[in-house]
Amino acid sequence: MRTSIATVCLSGALVEKLHACAEAGFDGVEVFEPDLVAAPQSPEEIRALADRLGLTLDLYQPFRDAEGVDEAAFGDVLRRAEAKLALMRRLGTETMLVCSNVATATVDDDEVSASQLRRLGDLAAAYDIRLAYEALAWGRFVDDYRRAWRIVERADHPHVGVCLDSFHILSRGHDPAEIEKIPGDRIFFLQLADAPALTMDVLSWSRHHRLFPGEGSFDLPTFLGHVLRAGYDGPLSLEVFNDTFRRTDPARTARQALRSLRWLEDRAARDLGATTTATLGRLPDAPAPRGVDFVEVRAEDTTPVETILEQLGFDFRGRHRSKNVRLWTQGAARIVCHERPAAGARPVVAAVGFNVADPEGAALRAGRLMAPPVHRQTYAGDQDLRAFAAPDGTEVFLSGGGAWEEEFEHGVRPDPDPAITHVDHVNLVQPWQFFDEAVLFYGSVLSLEPQPALDVAGPSGLVRSQVMRSADGAVRLPLNLLPAEQHGHAQHVALACRDIVGLARAARERGLRPLRIPGNYYDDLAARLDVDDELLATLRSLDLLYDRDSTGEYLHLYTQTVGGVFFEVVERRGGYDGYGAGDAPVRLSSQAAHVSSRCGTCA
Amino acid sequence: MRTSIATVCLSGALVEKLHACAEAGFDGVEVFEPDLVAAPQSPEEIRALADRLGLTLDLYQPFRDAEGVDEAAFGDVLRRAEAKLALMRRLGTETMLVCSNVATATVDDDEVSASQLRRLGDLAAAYDIRLAYEALAWGRFVDDYRRAWRIVERADHPHVGVCLDSFHILSRGHDPAEIEKIPGDRIFFLQLADAPALTMDVLSWSRHHRLFPGEGSFDLPTFLGHVLRAGYDGPLSLEVFNDTFRRTDPARTARQALRSLRWLEDRAARDLGATTTATLGRLPDAPAPRGVDFVEVRAEDTTPVETILEQLGFDFRGRHRSKNVRLWTQGAARIVCHERPAAGARPVVAAVGFNVADPEGAALRAGRLMAPPVHRQTYAGDQDLRAFAAPDGTEVFLSGGGAWEEEFEHGVRPDPDPAITHVDHVNLVQPWQFFDEAVLFYGSVLSLEPQPALDVAGPSGLVRSQVMRSADGAVRLPLNLLPAEQHGHAQHVALACRDIVGLARAARERGLRPLRIPGNYYDDLAARLDVDDELLATLRSLDLLYDRDSTGEYLHLYTQTVGGVFFEVVERRGGYDGYGAGDAPVRLSSQAAHVSSRCGTCA
Repeated sequence: MRTSIATVCLSGALVEKLHACAEAGFDGVEVFEPDLVAAPQSPEEIRALADRLGLTLDLYQPFRDAEGVDEAAFGDVLRRAEAKLALMRRLGTETMLVCSNVATATVDDDEVSASQLRRLGDLAAAYDIRLAYEALAWGRFVDDYRRAWRIVERADHPHVGVCLDSFHILSRGHDPAEIEKIPGDRIFFLQLADAPALTMDVLSWSRHHRLFPGEGSFDLPTFLGHVLRAGYDGPLSLEVFNDTFRRTDPARTARQALRSLRWLEDRAARDLGATTTATLGRLPDAPAPRGVDFVEVRAEDTTPVETILEQLGFDFRGRHRSKNVRLWTQGAARIVCHERPAAGARPVVAAVGFNVADPEGAALRAGRLMAPPVHRQTYAGDQDLRAFAAPDGTEVFLSGGGAWEEEFEHGVRPDPDPAITHVDHVNLVQPWQFFDEAVLFYGSVLSLEPQPALDVAGPSGLVRSQVMRSADGAVRLPLNLLPAEQHGHAQHVALACRDIVGLARAARERGLRPLRIPGNYYDDLAARLDVDDELLATLRSLDLLYDRDSTGEYLHLYTQTVGGVFFEVVERRGGYDGYGAGDAPVRLSSQAAHVSSRCGTCA
Repeated sequence: MRTSIATVCLSGALVEKLHACAEAGFDGVEVFEPDLVAAPQSPEEIRALADRLGLTLDLYQPFRDAEGVDEAAFGDVLRRAEAKLALMRRLGTETMLVCSNVATATVDDDEVSASQLRRLGDLAAAYDIRLAYEALAWGRFVDDYRRAWRIVERADHPHVGVCLDSFHILSRGHDPAEIEKIPGDRIFFLQLADAPALTMDVLSWSRHHRLFPGEGSFDLPTFLGHVLRAGYDGPLSLEVFNDTFRRTDPARTARQALRSLRWLEDRAARDLGATTTATLGRLPDAPAPRGVDFVEVRAEDTTPVETILEQLGFDFRGRHRSKNVRLWTQGAARIVCHERPAAGARPVVAAVGFNVADPEGAALRAGRLMAPPVHRQTYAGDQDLRAFAAPDGTEVFLSGGGAWEEEFEHGVRPDPDPAITHVDHVNLVQPWQFFDEAVLFYGSVLSLEPQPALDVAGPSGLVRSQVMRSADGAVRLPLNLLPAEQHGHAQHVALACRDIVGLARAARERGLRPLRIPGNYYDDLAARLDVDDELLATLRSLDLLYDRDSTGEYLHLYTQTVGGVFFEVVERRGGYDGYGAGDAPVRLSSQAAHVSSRCGTCA
């Protein structure tokens, strides 16, 4: 279907926004009036630029406070409307958004609103313009799309239809199924926005927190299904008011926006099957990965990381036959240490490899979702893994499993009975401006599902955390938000093991110094969870953390941080499915204390 | 009265927080349990440190989910409580906060809650500890302080009283007057927090957006009055969960916090007069300033600013007899241009002088509010103006009027019929971490009143704006919030005039190039406000902006930006009392366009 986006979604000046939308690949835009008002270019110049860029100007918006007023006030509405309709002729825009009245409505009567829309329709007809009437969630009298449709039906004018906006409908909890009762050709426009689950006034929620589809908690594939089954065949247009997107690179936001529509079209197409004639774009199939294939740590010198791996019982599996890369494994956990001259002194998680059933299909899907490909040096005989850059630059590899292990030489054979079995999760701290984009990226490219977000308290502030995971839990990526003023964060790799107590003891004997956990933590644990004395003494002596819920237990320990990386070892007992979020404040405080005591092992 | 603060108000580790509270001058702290749990120090070490710093540990908090449970669950509550009471003995803390049950309550019955509190009271008595029971605004069954008091009354135990928290009471709109029905000795603790007027779930509002008294919209002087009239004589303690304060310098936040209490004590003392025996701290009287006395622009070279002043019709009034400062005036508007070698190439608003009735009293008040004094070079015969640093470093001068003008020599005589009459307002952009502190600073030190905040949209994001003003409007300081990732902002000085059309024409003849306003703005103005053709043509030809409301009209123009400064000229007609906020997006866009076209006159 045709794709469009409201200029208010992006930062910058109108001309910059148009370029960003065209470069991303949108078919059209909604002209947000304040963007035009603030632009130094004339409407004719904007129209000519859009033409040259191949963009249609699909909607002019918003026209406010149009109906539900007394006759005296309506005279002024007609005067305002005529000026805007004349302006729209100059722009070449054929549809105007008319919002339900917020500020000036005095008459709560469908017949009055319908008759006023009809008269506006007559005026619009003279300009060959259509009016798309929308119920704002905070409209004075009309705040429900079903009432807006009743009014439009009553207005009974060929130039008056409805505009549907997913936010206004879903934020109020209105049932979108009734959209199917509206004839498709009476739906003049469709605006799509996602949003996080928040409990606040809808106006603030709408103005500050909207997200692109796939980034929030609305069920937009189902919503879109209703609209398409109604017979709508106009553009899919995004209208997202978001404090972050208003401040960040518009070219990047526009690509993110189009990715969200491609994801949404595909999801809706899968749900709808043959029940609509709409021509929805489809993506190649790509089920969620079967697991984390490897994690790559990169630095000029990765020795400090390799020391920790050895202490944790990893086996050195050799050096790559053509690259300066060393492989360490334990069970299915593989850590690749890549020394590169300009990589910086600080080891970082530079790449994560995912084990996917069909690497070729997954790469095709990533490409269709505009994931930027990463160039890799590949040598004769090396397996050619496809890689893409996540929003924060982390390289995401798509592999079919560990066949590439054979490219490593001169290592030991793997331990047949390893303590660590696999990578449990990879925690990726995201700079603030990439957080929502990362949710969409991992959700769409890797088909991971976003879990509810939460805040954890650390000594430098609250950390927003949201886990992306596969349905079976084989892949788990907690994403943490890094505020704009903070730097020097570390990513971490959590390794699953069967016997963390035995592993912690063995690792200590091999010289591991885990992150020190304060004694007060164990006193609190005893009070809070009534942990028995023997277990408590073990936890305390080994700096293990502990959580328990109704399904099971979670024991975990942290290594010290090396540059931008640290490791966690976790043992899940029973059905425990969380991440010990309650322990995060203690972990963050201990790490901060460790950094401020300027330990020599830290970069 | 004694002052206290919850450690959760501050960032950092517990030890760092204790130092910050002691340095600011607090008498005590509330120990927030997660801070202790994450601390590497033992409770005995924390107690000893607090002793050495002269801090009492006034409250241990929170103890959750204590009452309203079935008997089986209550056994675990007693076990948990005993562990925490024992811990409190180690800390030497005599009062524990018991919150109304949120998570585990199953019994909605005052008698059950009272009886369980009574049994907890028996246990606490054995440790000589008092329990302060608080109704959380989101308690499962108990969410109103009046019900908490009924339960405490029914528990009828000397070790069980109530804790009152202004947020939990005022956020729910509960009438605080009934606090006076509670005997003062049954109010075991008082927690104070302000908050902005937001419409959202109280839990999120409480956890992220609390503010220190004087920074938000709650009427805390009245609230405190009720508590004191009830006979409460314990500490005034702050409990402020705030995303910004969690991330910023704890020493600074602690000073800000104590300032808020000094302001609040003074306000309450003025309201209460002799109706309470509480010994409230008082501040010296200092009514709001009578006007802006001068604005100082500072740079290595202030010539570009002086050029604009001359174009606006300012008179050069001479050079200071001992400093490298030049004075320009028009009417009562005085701009001091201060050239200083290390001031940087970029002119900035370095200081604002305020005309106060009693400079000595105002300076005493500022000192009591811990405003940092600014050192000034003063020479024999110069007027000795007292100055203090605002949170962002802007110097605030307190003067009794323009007698210091006489220190300037070799200038012209002032125009007896000036076009510009005075400084209308000074717009000060605040780095994000100083915004709330600035509201408190200007509110308490200068006795300005905060007006409701609003967001205006610019091409780089939304700008939060809040005006601080004197009741008579003679002093107006709009504060705009600058996000963490943005730099290079400009402050601006708005100059009031009687005839902006005449002034704009004259200024153009003197070479002024105002900020260019796009033609689309005028088309929109015609549609929106039905401005008549003649006025519209005038506005358009002179790049004037225009706003109108039911009380009057506002015409204004902007100069181009020089480094970190620009000027606005405003003409208020009728009773118009705003700032043309609707024009801000156009102004911000035009400024951004101007910067990106890299005009040669910009630094």
